[in-house]
Amino acid sequence: MPEFFTVLAPEAALAKLWQHLPTTGLATPEEVATAEALGRVTFAAVTAPAALPAFARSAMDGFAVRAHDTYGASQSLPAYLHVIGETPMGRAPDFSLAPGQAAIIHTGGMLPGGADAVVMVEVTQASREHEIEVLRAVAPGENVLHIGDDIAAGAVMLPAGHWLRPQDVGGLTALGLTRLTVARRPRVALLATGDELVPPEAAPAPGQVRDVNSYTLGSLVQQAGGVPVQCGIVGDNFEALRTAATAALAGADALILSAGSSVSVRDMTAAVIDGLGKPGTLVHGVAVKPGKPTILAVAEGKPVFGLPGNPVSALVVADLFVTPTIYRLQGCSSPPPRRSVRARLTHNLASAAGRVDYIPARLDYNAATAADDGLPAAEPVFGKSNQIFTLVNADGMLVVPMDTTGLSAGAVVEVRLF
Amino acid sequence: MPEFFTVLAPEAALAKLWQHLPTTGLATPEEVATAEALGRVTFAAVTAPAALPAFARSAMDGFAVRAHDTYGASQSLPAYLHVIGETPMGRAPDFSLAPGQAAIIHTGGMLPGGADAVVMVEVTQASREHEIEVLRAVAPGENVLHIGDDIAAGAVMLPAGHWLRPQDVGGLTALGLTRLTVARRPRVALLATGDELVPPEAAPAPGQVRDVNSYTLGSLVQQAGGVPVQCGIVGDNFEALRTAATAALAGADALILSAGSSVSVRDMTAAVIDGLGKPGTLVHGVAVKPGKPTILAVAEGKPVFGLPGNPVSALVVADLFVTPTIYRLQGCSSPPPRRSVRARLTHNLASAAGRVDYIPARLDYNAATAADDGLPAAEPVFGKSNQIFTLVNADGMLVVPMDTTGLSAGAVVEVRLF
Repeated sequence: MPEFFTVLAPEAALAKLWQHLPTTGLATPEEVATAEALGRVTFAAVTAPAALPAFARSAMDGFAVRAHDTYGASQSLPAYLHVIGETPMGRAPDFSLAPGQAAIIHTGGMLPGGADAVVMVEVTQASREHEIEVLRAVAPGENVLHIGDDIAAGAVMLPAGHWLRPQDVGGLTALGLTRLTVARRPRVALLATGDELVPPEAAPAPGQVRDVNSYTLGSLVQQAGGVPVQCGIVGDNFEALRTAATAALAGADALILSAGSSVSVRDMTAAVIDGLGKPGTLVHGVAVKPGKPTILAVAEGKPVFGLPGNPVSALVVADLFVTPTIYRLQGCSSPPPRRSVRARLTHNLASAAGRVDYIPARLDYNAATAADDGLPAAEPVFGKSNQIFTLVNADGMLVVPMDTTGLSAGAVVEVRLF
Repeated sequence: MPEFFTVLAPEAALAKLWQHLPTTGLATPEEVATAEALGRVTFAAVTAPAALPAFARSAMDGFAVRAHDTYGASQSLPAYLHVIGETPMGRAPDFSLAPGQAAIIHTGGMLPGGADAVVMVEVTQASREHEIEVLRAVAPGENVLHIGDDIAAGAVMLPAGHWLRPQDVGGLTALGLTRLTVARRPRVALLATGDELVPPEAAPAPGQVRDVNSYTLGSLVQQAGGVPVQCGIVGDNFEALRTAATAALAGADALILSAGSSVSVRDMTAAVIDGLGKPGTLVHGVAVKPGKPTILAVAEGKPVFGLPGNPVSALVVADLFVTPTIYRLQGCSSPPPRRSVRARLTHNLASAAGRVDYIPARLDYNAATAADDGLPAAEPVFGKSNQIFTLVNADGMLVVPMDTTGLSAGAVVEVRLF
């Protein structure tokens, strides 16, 4: 690693990358059906084209009344009201209430003219035919949803850059917004380098291994709302890699180079990345284990990631830097929170201060922990290989924070899930 | 609600539903490309067709050696080894090590014949041309990944019913398993009832509202790996609803009826559900607020859900019962953990014991809380409407557990995110 780069803490490294991304125009618009917009990001703020509810509705099953008629009503001295009809569902009532009158109303029904409150059926009782006793007074507006109570016409219902959840799809649907402008999914080019790599469908000869990172990282790209663009494998040849990386970046919104595992290939990858465009390499080395030899760069206004070849390191680093950047490329200011689980550590763990350690861990929800606080046990998965099955056999990555020199058995830790 | 049904706690209600689902044959197989299998569920256990690594590989950059040659080596008394070549990446070396010999090797390189360990480059120094000094002894096998260290041939790499994460896609790819048998996505029919409902694209007349639940619940179905099958809206007519529900259930693996909001429609829905097939209604009423008037049933071996018409209630209940059941229909024994956030409550909250309360809440990550533990503040969103924008304006639902009569400001709460 060139000496002039300082190893940066993860937050500082990401901030440095983002500082050099364009501040406008990263996200571009695309129109989709609202019913298919789950997980997409609003391109612009959405305002309500109409008020909801659009008419005064009952919030209860009971009787529409004029509140004034119920004043002073009690168990011992009920108010007697004449029931003149039943409000239909889905239509405006064709009658109005005069003083002393009430009408049967269902939850969601439209209030008839003259009515300004609803008495719950539970605080009434039948007296004679077409007559009820009201046992408690209601105030004007009680048990009524007024026009605009849910949302007012013209109000901002969703800001720009909002990640769409099921209820947001519902809110848009309620207002009849069946189509929506969202950020186009960023295209993220994936290029693997290393003479030892063959595609997944090939039978590796001795000394060869299949390219794994293009697919684990492609899955992460999908999870963050991007489109993985598989650009294949390039051998350890500077010119070939430069040509392939240039083409890959030109056809995408971001580029991930997953370097071969040997140090010579890593150096070559660094040189290629730095030559892709200005400002070039911004971060070379992060205070993360595994994943230290990471490169973050910007070229032609697009983010470029140089990730370690080790599949565990590559996933850890991509999770820290690629995932949030893909959300940023969608203009997303509210990405979904990281899926993580709090757990109780089963073993002492040593760590160096000044570095965030990620250690594969299994979660055991049945282990009785001394604290008996319902937290699962987090058992570190030790092993020298640090290959992909370390992660397949783990539930997540246990985080040892930057400022600690280790954790004691029994400590509460965060386990990040992929 | 019929008196012979007892209101059940959520866990008991779900258990009762599942007891009456078939124990076999719920999931059916489908073959997909591994690169597109993220979030799908394995239909059967997957065993490794070969060992990984398939050859002894170096875990470090350094020198392949015969460990015996390094015994006793130290800073003051290094072992001198003759460097006979460099192991290529991606090919088997065409040489073997004799005693006293070493070869340059890169991380991931194949060990030459005769070598049984790797000395890290950091504990060597160049002495003369083609000679190195080894400053520390290595044991046989040190810094070497042996055949099968990552996974042994024939080992179960993924159990049946496993929810596929990025690293699982990687593990399959590493072994050349580019296609995979997963559980077919369950088709979940959605049928809305209520004379007041119109489709989202319609302009509601006075008294009418757009059908929201079919789309919020459809989004939840998608999130859980199911396929929403929109079956439209049926008015408040028993025969029409019976016919539509029967057809919807026949064409799907599960049925969700979202009843209109009035009590008469709810009663009709309950009768229709109970007539769909044996054993019929299993749960009528759950100890959840909002969401009490929930129906869980099984008909023709398929789960049927009768959900409240209120969009907030419907989402809360679907999240508790529909989501886990869709995973179960895929044979999934390890669904992804619920996305939730721990937060510190800003207000006192009253609640009735014997009922789980879900209260919309906003999260504030900038609020300084007294405990200063980095937890966001959870501010309940109060309001009478309980309509869809209550949830649009919230970050999630704050949970007040069954056995409490309330929570005090400052308490740590779980906020479940949709």
